[in-house]
Amino acid sequence: MRDDEQVLAANSGFYAAFAAQDTAAMAALWAQRAPVACIHPGWQPLLGRDAVLASWRAILSGPGAPPIRCGDAVAHVLGDSAYVICVELIAPVELIATNIFVREDGAWRMTHHHASSIARGASEPEEDPEPEGFLH
Amino acid sequence: MRDDEQVLAANSGFYAAFAAQDTAAMAALWAQRAPVACIHPGWQPLLGRDAVLASWRAILSGPGAPPIRCGDAVAHVLGDSAYVICVELIAPVELIATNIFVREDGAWRMTHHHASSIARGASEPEEDPEPEGFLH
Repeated sequence: MRDDEQVLAANSGFYAAFAAQDTAAMAALWAQRAPVACIHPGWQPLLGRDAVLASWRAILSGPGAPPIRCGDAVAHVLGDSAYVICVELIAPVELIATNIFVREDGAWRMTHHHASSIARGASEPEEDPEPEGFLH
Repeated sequence: MRDDEQVLAANSGFYAAFAAQDTAAMAALWAQRAPVACIHPGWQPLLGRDAVLASWRAILSGPGAPPIRCGDAVAHVLGDSAYVICVELIAPVELIATNIFVREDGAWRMTHHHASSIARGASEPEEDPEPEGFLH
């Protein structure tokens, strides 16, 4: 498999663990040595493997975790790291995610996840202080 | 300078170009060869240098661009790439950003920017389908 295919497979593994509420698989796919961080939608950032994995344990063990699907994933390889942009479909909500991976011990492991809300079909910013202006 | 200090300096350069509405500086700080992408708050992702720089030209040349400041920046170096997490202060709005950099020709250049809204002081997700549940 090419690097980008391997990265997309790792990205799919993340969403498979998420959808299956599999805390052991989720813990295994995060980097062991590279610095780990996570920004859940609307949250302050979590820094460090312990804080990030604790958040996933809480999320995956909660009763309210809805089905999640990943779509439109695009991988960008930067040597021994890579980032994926994809849509997260959690009906009726659509989120956008940036997932960063790093090659560790021959496997692509997640180092950072940032998910946020997106306007469906948006081509304009959600926050627009003036008709002609952009927040960015 | 250590790598993380260089990355933080590159991150500061991005916000300096943004605050100064300097389109030439903004164009120069994005990667020339590495794959470029950008997720403005609430937007669909933009892929490719041309689309990303066109968006910045529109934003920086618009009359509505408010003052922006970067805070709480933390750099995580992954060899020849790195990611920074920081807060973007655009009064009265507070955003959270993930910025990915790659080393090109000895300089740290931006390959991806993802900014999204954040609840001030939030420790809970902004979208919570059930009292005990998390979107993630």
